[in-house]
Amino acid sequence: MESFIHDNFLLNNKFAVDLYHHYAKNMPIYDYHCHLSPKDIAENKKFNNITELWLSGDHYKWRALRAHGIEEYFITGDASDEEKFAAWAETVPFTIGNALYHWTHIELKRYFGVDELLNKDNWKKVYHRCNELLHQDEYSVQGLIKSSNLKVICTTDDPTDDLYYHDQIKQQKDFNVKVLPTFRPDKGLEINKETFVDFVNQLEEITNKTLTDFEDYIEALEERVQYFHDKGSRLADHGLSEIPFAYFEKNELDPIFKAGRKGERVSKEDEIKFKSALFIFLAKCYKKRNWAMQIHFGAIRNNNVKMYRRLGPDAGFDSISDQGEVAAPLNALLNALDSEDCLPRTIIYNLNPIYNDLIGSTIQNFQTEAGIAGKIQFGSGWWFNDTKPGMIRQLSSLADQALLSHFIGMLTDSRSFISYSRHEYFRRVLCNLIGTWVEEGEVPNDPTLLQNLIENICYNNARNYFSIEV
Amino acid sequence: MESFIHDNFLLNNKFAVDLYHHYAKNMPIYDYHCHLSPKDIAENKKFNNITELWLSGDHYKWRALRAHGIEEYFITGDASDEEKFAAWAETVPFTIGNALYHWTHIELKRYFGVDELLNKDNWKKVYHRCNELLHQDEYSVQGLIKSSNLKVICTTDDPTDDLYYHDQIKQQKDFNVKVLPTFRPDKGLEINKETFVDFVNQLEEITNKTLTDFEDYIEALEERVQYFHDKGSRLADHGLSEIPFAYFEKNELDPIFKAGRKGERVSKEDEIKFKSALFIFLAKCYKKRNWAMQIHFGAIRNNNVKMYRRLGPDAGFDSISDQGEVAAPLNALLNALDSEDCLPRTIIYNLNPIYNDLIGSTIQNFQTEAGIAGKIQFGSGWWFNDTKPGMIRQLSSLADQALLSHFIGMLTDSRSFISYSRHEYFRRVLCNLIGTWVEEGEVPNDPTLLQNLIENICYNNARNYFSIEV
Amino acid sequence: MESFIHDNFLLNNKFAVDLYHHYAKNMPIYDYHCHLSPKDIAENKKFNNITELWLSGDHYKWRALRAHGIEEYFITGDASDEEKFAAWAETVPFTIGNALYHWTHIELKRYFGVDELLNKDNWKKVYHRCNELLHQDEYSVQGLIKSSNLKVICTTDDPTDDLYYHDQIKQQKDFNVKVLPTFRPDKGLEINKETFVDFVNQLEEITNKTLTDFEDYIEALEERVQYFHDKGSRLADHGLSEIPFAYFEKNELDPIFKAGRKGERVSKEDEIKFKSALFIFLAKCYKKRNWAMQIHFGAIRNNNVKMYRRLGPDAGFDSISDQGEVAAPLNALLNALDSEDCLPRTIIYNLNPIYNDLIGSTIQNFQTEAGIAGKIQFGSGWWFNDTKPGMIRQLSSLADQALLSHFIGMLTDSRSFISYSRHEYFRRVLCNLIGTWVEEGEVPNDPTLLQNLIENICYNNARNYFSIEV
Repeated sequence: MESFIHDNFLLNNKFAVDLYHHYAKNMPIYDYHCHLSPKDIAENKKFNNITELWLSGDHYKWRALRAHGIEEYFITGDASDEEKFAAWAETVPFTIGNALYHWTHIELKRYFGVDELLNKDNWKKVYHRCNELLHQDEYSVQGLIKSSNLKVICTTDDPTDDLYYHDQIKQQKDFNVKVLPTFRPDKGLEINKETFVDFVNQLEEITNKTLTDFEDYIEALEERVQYFHDKGSRLADHGLSEIPFAYFEKNELDPIFKAGRKGERVSKEDEIKFKSALFIFLAKCYKKRNWAMQIHFGAIRNNNVKMYRRLGPDAGFDSISDQGEVAAPLNALLNALDSEDCLPRTIIYNLNPIYNDLIGSTIQNFQTEAGIAGKIQFGSGWWFNDTKPGMIRQLSSLADQALLSHFIGMLTDSRSFISYSRHEYFRRVLCNLIGTWVEEGEVPNDPTLLQNLIENICYNNARNYFSIEV
Repeated sequence: MESFIHDNFLLNNKFAVDLYHHYAKNMPIYDYHCHLSPKDIAENKKFNNITELWLSGDHYKWRALRAHGIEEYFITGDASDEEKFAAWAETVPFTIGNALYHWTHIELKRYFGVDELLNKDNWKKVYHRCNELLHQDEYSVQGLIKSSNLKVICTTDDPTDDLYYHDQIKQQKDFNVKVLPTFRPDKGLEINKETFVDFVNQLEEITNKTLTDFEDYIEALEERVQYFHDKGSRLADHGLSEIPFAYFEKNELDPIFKAGRKGERVSKEDEIKFKSALFIFLAKCYKKRNWAMQIHFGAIRNNNVKMYRRLGPDAGFDSISDQGEVAAPLNALLNALDSEDCLPRTIIYNLNPIYNDLIGSTIQNFQTEAGIAGKIQFGSGWWFNDTKPGMIRQLSSLADQALLSHFIGMLTDSRSFISYSRHEYFRRVLCNLIGTWVEEGEVPNDPTLLQNLIENICYNNARNYFSIEV
Repeated sequence: MESFIHDNFLLNNKFAVDLYHHYAKNMPIYDYHCHLSPKDIAENKKFNNITELWLSGDHYKWRALRAHGIEEYFITGDASDEEKFAAWAETVPFTIGNALYHWTHIELKRYFGVDELLNKDNWKKVYHRCNELLHQDEYSVQGLIKSSNLKVICTTDDPTDDLYYHDQIKQQKDFNVKVLPTFRPDKGLEINKETFVDFVNQLEEITNKTLTDFEDYIEALEERVQYFHDKGSRLADHGLSEIPFAYFEKNELDPIFKAGRKGERVSKEDEIKFKSALFIFLAKCYKKRNWAMQIHFGAIRNNNVKMYRRLGPDAGFDSISDQGEVAAPLNALLNALDSEDCLPRTIIYNLNPIYNDLIGSTIQNFQTEAGIAGKIQFGSGWWFNDTKPGMIRQLSSLADQALLSHFIGMLTDSRSFISYSRHEYFRRVLCNLIGTWVEEGEVPNDPTLLQNLIENICYNNARNYFSIEV
């Protein structure tokens, strides 16, 4: 049988093949959003085995294992790494039709040269082959990154992080991929979550200030933005279950903050006012420093309480949410920022694909800053949309409602050092989509036009969009 | 002209053709949800003519007839069966693009050998041919079922039904298809509908108990669950306009029940508490007996009040509903059941396709029972989704967000004894989808993998999922 | 390179080619909804240059220009027409994948014979070629209309308009396209918008009546309906951000009207009651006169307040909205009209494609008027859906949930005199969709069936649907 992951995997017409091999394939990677560990990079970690690298933190795979009826013992429990790998191998053939089936085989092939379909018969051979390679130096974290043609990696970091490991990485002269922090202040906005009080305490500690009122609080936050800026950060990220917006009076904010500071629950209305105010304030901080701001919204998390108590967050019990009305608060939020001239470059990722056209048409209401093409971005298919159908939906809506040409393209959003092949995956999907448009006469077969389109989405647009020197 | 319903109808590439003819076509049928009349089966009814069999209860066709401008007289009125058939034949060519066009011709061909496109010119010939065949013995209800390769039929039954006809069927030794009841207690949950008081009265009568308080009520319900269980039922079904969930205190339930018992309207909040409590209680009953639970949600019914007064429910005036937020109550409901260790095997059907990805990602939060693959199911395209586009949407979302491999597949949901060809229709759609994936390189051309996938979805998964001996 | 807009543009199989060239291409155009200026038609306006004709009022293009980073000065500002055209030409290659790319080149080719891809290199040549042609007599407004094979044009008009220009057009015997007004009373329903008081004042003036109470108000509105009727109008149009419905008592309406009359803000609840009452009243007026009623819902407008203050409405800052629940109010509204026997022929356009299946299934609840096929219509892809993907979505949902055969087809909804090529665009999309169905065996290759289907959707259905003599 032919290789499953062959040269023209997912490329179904000659235009797609040409676009991918001529333009897309060799572009560098600009991974402007991920959850890689700066510590692992700084320490150039090596992995004991493929389970540690591939399964130990991957809640996408955990969900599939559970749906296949595998005991938790073999997933996050005390089973040996070998047993866990065997359980995964047994599950893989049942993921047919799911992105996991593609990711699994593309990662095995690109990083380990494994060209077989993983299953319960060949798992042992594959396990040992991968582990052997992992013992080699070029399979260290930095080795894996270098072999993946990366230019920039933006990690995701708490405002109270001292960014020690980012400093360490910068000093390693033989590792010349830029690894920059991203400012993610979710805990500081989620006033009704149990993490709020701790966050403020830590913020006090790291800024060496007493945060008594709202003004103190936002000053401390800005100090941290500046700290991140000094460390090279040019990017913030906000994760939200819903898009919040409500008009507020300045004098309303202090009592809300003070209640939250004491661990009291504030009303939903006050929570939204608090978040709206912080958004406006932080956006000003970002805009002033020429940062870009990311908004990820629409996840409902930790839905299985029994498992949350057992395993904590990010264990595979999150799913797609919905929100009665999105258009009104999203437009109001963007307008509030724009009205105060503090709307930074903004990337909106949404988890529920039913909002794709709404997002695509909304961003066009705020593209008014001359000289910045595609200032407001509809972000790449996120999480449950980071699949072939999800990517096609996002690309199609973006093209239909806005300008695909200025799209800044793919990011990994990953915790794994071998998920860079998702850029390959995305590029194949992109080239197949555009190639199909050419084949069906929707787009002219104009080489210059097509080369620009593909190369820009793969890399150039991101390089130009972020104010990071590359 | 070639036959419209030819051997490779809807199979558009060689892989699709092979998958269908080698694996799908000859699998038996496991119809785990339908609305067939147990009385008609027990009495082995014969039909006077094709109108009685095909048009008299089919509100899908009625809607098309009305949209074609046909007078109600020729639809549900006093016109002769011949006139009604003529009206339908005249309408058929105008249903191009709708599943009715396919169903019509596939049913005419499979059951009556009619290979022409039905229209106003040939209706008389077709009418007489069908009627002649219907007078033959093999066109009795049991004859039609036997010729359709059925193994199991699960009807849909009221908790107060004595299941007399199910007993009758069991005793007919020359009819060896299992016909089992399904427990559908909607009237017992819908405390604000006019049917509630009658339901409780009938429940009193059949259990010979006085149902004074909530405890009495749920005891009586459990007695009926056990009665159904003794008659072979292993399946419940809940129809809901919306997914309800609210936390409640046990002592709140009694006053709500007592108000409803007296025919008083309870508040929306109390209604949801009542339903939530009953759901948890009934789920415990199901779980204890190893049943599966179905949830059908999202229909808005009897929207045309003039026609409802004239024709009653289920007359073609229902449509797709929406619900401001689905993710929160659905996750909360499933979590409540899981938290009390009473989440049975559950199948969720939703009527509004915009919730497909949400459902697909939600079920994965609750797949934690080791040893049951695909414990929580996203049910087959229901009602307005029981069409080629609807099936593709459901299959695609399921594959993308969960594991297609464990899908228990198609059911008819039908009131008609010749709608078993919908399984053929589904299998063609399924094989064409998977065949296209193979052709486009998304799935490897691995015969064993593909055979398992197709045969499991067509029959084996359902046989393994339900605790019914086959 | 082959022409981009070649004979078989968007027609990707032989059936599509045949359907388009044999049946669709030469059907006349029935433009039952547009925003063309009756004054421009009556005065047979000539354009100074292509910018004036093509860019000066086109907020679709403005959005693309802004997203490309062009300064507002070159969009709606004081730049010369030549500079504005150059800015647009520079932007065009970046609209790849968007309908603008297709519309641009189809309009350039059909009206100006330009067969090149517009860009920053050839803009000057194109600009001058177009301008030369625009100076010729056949490029006057009436010339452009005549060359487009139009039979009927329905403009969109305020109830207080005297329809002077419609009279003028009727008297021009050498111009035999019917140009009829459409009654669009939005300002009269939007009691909470600042335009309400002015509207009532103008209504007083044109009817020469004092409008003291609700009864006066609706009498005056009916007088205007009759006035429009006498001028040949057979069509109303309602634009709504949301579908409103609430039950009301007659005596509630007077106080609401009187508050609005004084410029006071009424409660959301009262607003919805007021709109519901007016809808029922106006529908009666329409029904009595055998008019059709259009409902456009789901836009969120003027979201960028800074730009709204600068440029006013309809400047490219509107987008797709959502509404927590649509099914309930839409069914209740249609049922209220049907219950009072005043449901006219109704066309429902929705802006958010997630409601397509809901709309398609809802219209079927109210198709009960014998003799009118497709009485309730799901309108053609509107605004952000007036694109290839949007058209396919609307056609597919309509076919799947209702009867495509009775669809009254395309309208331009345009302010531009060269957007009639959008009918060509629609017909190509339609023929390609149906042609693909034939190729894939979903629809039989029956020439009569297909000819009827195509010709009816292109023209005949609209001609039969509206009670306008053509």
